Amino acid sequence: MNQASKLEATLNLVKELDKLKQVIRRNYLLDGSRSENTAEHSWHAALSALLLQEFANEAIDINKVVRMLLIHDVVEIEAGDTYLYDTAAEVGQAERELAAAHNIFSMLPGEEGDQYLQLWLEFEERETPEAKFAKAIDRFMPMMANYESGGKSWLENKVSRARILEINQIVADGSEALWQLVLTLSADAFEKGWLL
Amino acid sequence: MNQASKLEATLNLVKELDKLKQVIRRNYLLDGSRSENTAEHSWHAALSALLLQEFANEAIDINKVVRMLLIHDVVEIEAGDTYLYDTAAEVGQAERELAAAHNIFSMLPGEEGDQYLQLWLEFEERETPEAKFAKAIDRFMPMMANYESGGKSWLENKVSRARILEINQIVADGSEALWQLVLTLSADAFEKGWLL
Repeated sequence: MNQASKLEATLNLVKELDKLKQVIRRNYLLDGSRSENTAEHSWHAALSALLLQEFANEAIDINKVVRMLLIHDVVEIEAGDTYLYDTAAEVGQAERELAAAHNIFSMLPGEEGDQYLQLWLEFEERETPEAKFAKAIDRFMPMMANYESGGKSWLENKVSRARILEINQIVADGSEALWQLVLTLSADAFEKGWLL
Repeated sequence: MNQASKLEATLNLVKELDKLKQVIRRNYLLDGSRSENTAEHSWHAALSALLLQEFANEAIDINKVVRMLLIHDVVEIEAGDTYLYDTAAEVGQAERELAAAHNIFSMLPGEEGDQYLQLWLEFEERETPEAKFAKAIDRFMPMMANYESGGKSWLENKVSRARILEINQIVADGSEALWQLVLTLSADAFEKGWLL
């Protein structure tokens, strides 16, 4: 592929990515004023990983973590957002997202598209230190937003404390420090009546 | 500073950053449906830099470019967004943004806060290859959005083709390929009557 065709193909993906700004998540901004979209969540998660890198359990390549978080949710352009605490919506989610990942990354010329697909899969599989830390950040962000907004989305979706601990347990694999915070915040949220 | 205090200080910044999702830019999403906010713009710019890295004029440290683009607009939490084509709003902008940069990055413990401040200054000064490419991407994103949305924000703000070329000329310093696109798109937008 020559440079002109490669630029055109890449720009088509850049334009497609704009749609992530219109994928709406269930959680709210910290002040509760509106729902968060997936593009701004991705920015917040990538930058927070950078800022919080020393709280990873293991030695990590932070640049890889940042790249993972920049792309981790692009599949939602096609597959939509699945609420963490919505068990029904989980059915078929992995298949839908994998198909979406193939579609979106194949917009890039062969080898490069494959590299992004591999990075996305590494994040999903959560086996490497980078994927574990990236997932910990990804889970911690809505935990923080829900707590700061007075449990708004937890109350709307009738989420229990047990479910919070179950869903967020993987935070412990990436960052013990953030996991301790999950325990503190969820205990306090329960006390306040924001969690069943 | 011990680890617990450092985590607390960093999380205070992470929470503060949420406000960037409420800073509204003059340009629209590509489909023209609503205005873009600065947080989602920052995500789109950082990821686009990653995807378009081979179109930089010079050899660059792409990880540094990505970090720059993740933080480049955080000053807008305090200083607000200044429209590229609004000359009146430019007065005092640099001073306002510098003061905001000092305030926001000083939320981090001493040395680390200073590293982010230096990175932000490097972007603003636009002297290194990384800063030149990051600025090229930052300017190209609204150019693309304005073009794709039928010149919506250009028409609303009565922007001329001459002004477009003047403002976007720095794209050429970071990426000749993107600069060629600026020329093509602005010529076409002028033909279509979207630019004065």
